[in-house]
Amino acid sequence: MPDKYLNTTMPMTVRMRRSPFFNRSQEGGAKGHIVYNNMFIATHFDTPESDYQHLKRAVQLWDVGCERQIEIQGPDAAKLVQMSTPRDISTMLPDQCFYIPTVDRDGYMTNDPVLLQVEPDRYWVSIADSDLMLYYKGLAAGLNLDVTIHEPDVSPLGIQGPLADNLAERVWGADAASIGFFRHTRVDVAGKPMILARSGYSLQGGYELYYEGADGSDELWDLLMSAGGDLDIRAGAPSQTERVEGGLLSYLSDITSDMTPFEAGLGHFCHVDRETGCLALDALRKKAQPVRQVRPVTIAGEPVPPMTGFWQVTDTSGAPVGRISSAVYAYTYHENIAIGLIDRSHWNVDTELLVHTSNGTRSAKIRSGFPGRQAKS
Amino acid sequence: MPDKYLNTTMPMTVRMRRSPFFNRSQEGGAKGHIVYNNMFIATHFDTPESDYQHLKRAVQLWDVGCERQIEIQGPDAAKLVQMSTPRDISTMLPDQCFYIPTVDRDGYMTNDPVLLQVEPDRYWVSIADSDLMLYYKGLAAGLNLDVTIHEPDVSPLGIQGPLADNLAERVWGADAASIGFFRHTRVDVAGKPMILARSGYSLQGGYELYYEGADGSDELWDLLMSAGGDLDIRAGAPSQTERVEGGLLSYLSDITSDMTPFEAGLGHFCHVDRETGCLALDALRKKAQPVRQVRPVTIAGEPVPPMTGFWQVTDTSGAPVGRISSAVYAYTYHENIAIGLIDRSHWNVDTELLVHTSNGTRSAKIRSGFPGRQAKS
Repeated sequence: MPDKYLNTTMPMTVRMRRSPFFNRSQEGGAKGHIVYNNMFIATHFDTPESDYQHLKRAVQLWDVGCERQIEIQGPDAAKLVQMSTPRDISTMLPDQCFYIPTVDRDGYMTNDPVLLQVEPDRYWVSIADSDLMLYYKGLAAGLNLDVTIHEPDVSPLGIQGPLADNLAERVWGADAASIGFFRHTRVDVAGKPMILARSGYSLQGGYELYYEGADGSDELWDLLMSAGGDLDIRAGAPSQTERVEGGLLSYLSDITSDMTPFEAGLGHFCHVDRETGCLALDALRKKAQPVRQVRPVTIAGEPVPPMTGFWQVTDTSGAPVGRISSAVYAYTYHENIAIGLIDRSHWNVDTELLVHTSNGTRSAKIRSGFPGRQAKS
Repeated sequence: MPDKYLNTTMPMTVRMRRSPFFNRSQEGGAKGHIVYNNMFIATHFDTPESDYQHLKRAVQLWDVGCERQIEIQGPDAAKLVQMSTPRDISTMLPDQCFYIPTVDRDGYMTNDPVLLQVEPDRYWVSIADSDLMLYYKGLAAGLNLDVTIHEPDVSPLGIQGPLADNLAERVWGADAASIGFFRHTRVDVAGKPMILARSGYSLQGGYELYYEGADGSDELWDLLMSAGGDLDIRAGAPSQTERVEGGLLSYLSDITSDMTPFEAGLGHFCHVDRETGCLALDALRKKAQPVRQVRPVTIAGEPVPPMTGFWQVTDTSGAPVGRISSAVYAYTYHENIAIGLIDRSHWNVDTELLVHTSNGTRSAKIRSGFPGRQAKS
């Protein structure tokens, strides 16, 4: 596909749903959207670089209502969740958030959600962009499991950036603001207890509030904006540059449904040595030594153009050895950082490669890590 | 939701896939897109009215590659398909296309695809906008069915309009062009036999070619354009006005996942009196007398504004009795035609209603049918 088609216009139709925070996010200056789980999510507000710099220094409110929840409730709820993921969920504490790669029976990725236990025998699976609910419904139907499965009216609100802690402490108190990474608690939102988790799609710290219903969403947004007035709080959205710098993968680009968790570099979440009940255990045991895997890549030269399709990766003689799925000019590091899916023969650190971008071939090299993640560890 | 946000801009990213006909469709003047099965589909080329008038008098090529196929192959293929639909598929002839509402075990809609038998024990399910493949995968995993399930590299090309027959006869011969409604045959496309079906998302007649692979797609497009030069052939896309006039429902707007096939007016596809093997038989038998159902509605007054969300329907005293999911000004009939989901108490023909549009309340009335469909019968 040529890269000459960078943008299009999109009508905001009935079938593209909006979260209760959509209007406030629009008023905050959302300048474009993509569609995610049949909902809109904003792409940028000021320039992408300005949004990025602000995210790294202040605090932003993100309408990430497109992270839909699948509620699975009943005596077989944990069993059903476990069948679909190689991660051992029996060790999850009641206040933990568990990142769970989900797979079909052959071990191929179906989503990469975050799992929460709302109460005993009641889970929320906070999904990336696929109708994972249909997999659970099919499995439950086939095995006649004692569960109910539905999409509750829950729309996460991201509170992201280094000043997110200050904001949360002001609004919900020091105890709420001091929860650990990927832990959750309940906070009072206009009289209703809602789940606040220390999580989010950035490396800058912050929270996700699992907002229930639609009533009062404007008021909550306004309350947070007001409480954060001196923290330079703004409306925002996930930053492509920040998340690629940090090595946060995106389902449907960096992770596709023809990949295993091992290929996606998620082998540490695959407890295939335990009899967890995951239906793909046997399949994944055979696929634990992948021949291609996600790798951080540096692309030489000027800032890379926007990507509208995968870029082929070859060795220096031109033989295909993989693809680039995301690439950005990293403002902080003054170089192009990319996420590649690279053949084993060429995935070692410092291997020299060629990346065939939409404006020419560049030299490239396998990195030892993603700089945004290293800075945090 | 207010209707003040009518359009947005959307980047054409890696994660939004394109069919092999995307470039030619763009060059044909596509002016906007929506996202459907994580692919782009064009919304209009000239004005919506000009596109509509042209569709009703000539022939158009539509890139409807977003109608993805789910290929189900193996000894249990028919059994798996039958489990997910209340329509009795045992009566399907080898060259038939079957419209099959698909449902979960509770009888709620999961998609409304078209089923084809490609060869014995090998089916294609041509889907509307949901990841129905995940339902099949879950069900097959739960029951350990002997099937393989994947998305083949098939991208339907629509050939729609009253002159489609002339075009098909010129390109593929009189036999191919004379197949019956919702029947399919194989035609030669640059040496490869591909499935041509008399089907499509319009009431104007025409075909869908199930194009396999990507090679040669430009050449095929150009061949068709050239062969139809004197037929006023153009690039096009499904027309919202034409399909609403004809009562063609759209999954995710007119049909939602909280509706049964009976509520969607698809009861004639629900063979709940037969022991077909559909897993929702018991559930659907209890739901065969719905208390709300899809109905054609006339909305009075000036041409209705574009819809960005459901419009509430009330009785004349203001009590809620349903919603409008699609509404258009029907150019041919000089009135506003809409698709409503209306409570039983108010669904009889000629019942007077109020529709609360984004620019005010209008009087409305239940129709006896959709005018585009009546004109064809």
